[in-house]
Amino acid sequence: MAVIYERVALIGLGLIASSMAHAMRRRGLAGHIAGHARSAETREAVRRIGFADAVHDSAAEAVRDADLVVLAVPVGAMHAVAREIRPHLKPGATVTDVGSVKQAVIEAVGPHVPPGVHFVPSHPLAGTEHSGPYSGFATLFENRWWLLTPIDGTDPGATARLRRLYEGFGANVDEMDAPHHDLVLAVVSHTPHLIAYTMVGVADHLRRVSKSEVIKYSATGFRDFTRIAASDPTMWRDVFLTNKEATLDVLGRFTEELFVLQRAIRMGDGDQLHEYFTRTRDIRRGIIEAGQDTDAPDFGRARKEEA
Amino acid sequence: MAVIYERVALIGLGLIASSMAHAMRRRGLAGHIAGHARSAETREAVRRIGFADAVHDSAAEAVRDADLVVLAVPVGAMHAVAREIRPHLKPGATVTDVGSVKQAVIEAVGPHVPPGVHFVPSHPLAGTEHSGPYSGFATLFENRWWLLTPIDGTDPGATARLRRLYEGFGANVDEMDAPHHDLVLAVVSHTPHLIAYTMVGVADHLRRVSKSEVIKYSATGFRDFTRIAASDPTMWRDVFLTNKEATLDVLGRFTEELFVLQRAIRMGDGDQLHEYFTRTRDIRRGIIEAGQDTDAPDFGRARKEEA
Repeated sequence: MAVIYERVALIGLGLIASSMAHAMRRRGLAGHIAGHARSAETREAVRRIGFADAVHDSAAEAVRDADLVVLAVPVGAMHAVAREIRPHLKPGATVTDVGSVKQAVIEAVGPHVPPGVHFVPSHPLAGTEHSGPYSGFATLFENRWWLLTPIDGTDPGATARLRRLYEGFGANVDEMDAPHHDLVLAVVSHTPHLIAYTMVGVADHLRRVSKSEVIKYSATGFRDFTRIAASDPTMWRDVFLTNKEATLDVLGRFTEELFVLQRAIRMGDGDQLHEYFTRTRDIRRGIIEAGQDTDAPDFGRARKEEA
Repeated sequence: MAVIYERVALIGLGLIASSMAHAMRRRGLAGHIAGHARSAETREAVRRIGFADAVHDSAAEAVRDADLVVLAVPVGAMHAVAREIRPHLKPGATVTDVGSVKQAVIEAVGPHVPPGVHFVPSHPLAGTEHSGPYSGFATLFENRWWLLTPIDGTDPGATARLRRLYEGFGANVDEMDAPHHDLVLAVVSHTPHLIAYTMVGVADHLRRVSKSEVIKYSATGFRDFTRIAASDPTMWRDVFLTNKEATLDVLGRFTEELFVLQRAIRMGDGDQLHEYFTRTRDIRRGIIEAGQDTDAPDFGRARKEEA
């Protein structure tokens, strides 16, 4: 494939940024990759791993001359980074981010993007339970969705170019507005994560069941919860703090519904439970048919590639 | 391996029973396998698949002369089956079951086991999201736990022999008392399943997010919930109705804890969220170290083998 951006700057060098670097390298999508991470330890690790052509001690240096700047820091850190890099952005450059929440990032970053620089917020629906610069791999985005939430007045050419990069990673790209993105993610990701964290926390507390029993017998539903609840704590703290409204909204619906099922259990209403459990099977079938899971023999992606 | 039971009868021919049959066949653990399922369609399927030596139209016929009788029907159906087979059990035979709840099964089956027949309740912590006679496979129990909950006065020889069978399947066998079993399972399996069913139901209802969006973007946490929530509705209805107390107990702890996190989100208490999410990571590490998940490269079991 041809180079899409001559110079790319990655700000934040965790799972997503390192995977983007590996993917750009493998497919020749970038001429030069610069990187910056706040922690000296991470910068040192990236120098050892070697997925960036240059590792800078400051974000300001890293973005100099970049055609594409990728903000890959926790959502809560976006504002400070945007303010720092503002005077150093090249006219005509594109700035994107990979945050899991879009309205809050647009509010934090948007005001700091100078005229003549294109801001195209984005969110890859891909990840693993691992984090940090060693966790990246080039195929993370293959057959995954990457959502763009362009803001009014964004140059369509800048958006199209960024889309080509993500499609070059093997991702499927969709566009939607930021508030809808935040609601959809509250349903399919943020609330499920909070629930999984909670359930794992409850198991950890419960005195009458030992931690070793929980671990031994986890292969019964609970294990999937622990996988979800092992994701990066800082990233998830910021997600909940910045997608507060949609998460609380969906959570309200969840507890309402849970109380209905809880009551059915208490009253011994087997028909209601059976009907509910039958309906949820349909959604699962839809996911398998849409190729979004690996259980059917033909979609054999490796475990590591799962979100 | 040597034959452990000359004649085995499987009552109920779904995922667990068919997997037991495949495992007994492959390892030569049974001389003759008889089976019965209530549905004519299932019996016909089993005749086609061929994992049983004989398929009977009644449970009473199937158990005749059996050295081991396995009750592999939903928990709510145990009572009727036990009553039906009672007059036909061979003196000295062992009866076991594979139900996910143990106190309710002991209450339902125990009174129907005649003197001279050994009743050893058991529960394999293994399964997939699939059900029915076509879903079984010989390796389902490998490296999985199989819990025995022997009742007072059970012949230790009968328990030891059943343990040898399960170990012959590659399972790890543990013993515990039935009330503790039901509490442990409420934590690691029953409550997580109810929560997953609920979350999938909420996503299905929410008008502002389309079903196709939920399916497309499921690879973000939600997908693991749908896998859990796709299990057999009848089995799960019976689990909740018969392990009511422990499930409601754990569910109460869960909602209490969820409200604490919900409040932290509403109040913007990032420290509390971060601390909570950091703690849950430890449990995940424990599970990987205990070899109960496949993410570490060395435990490469096939996807189909997961619970």
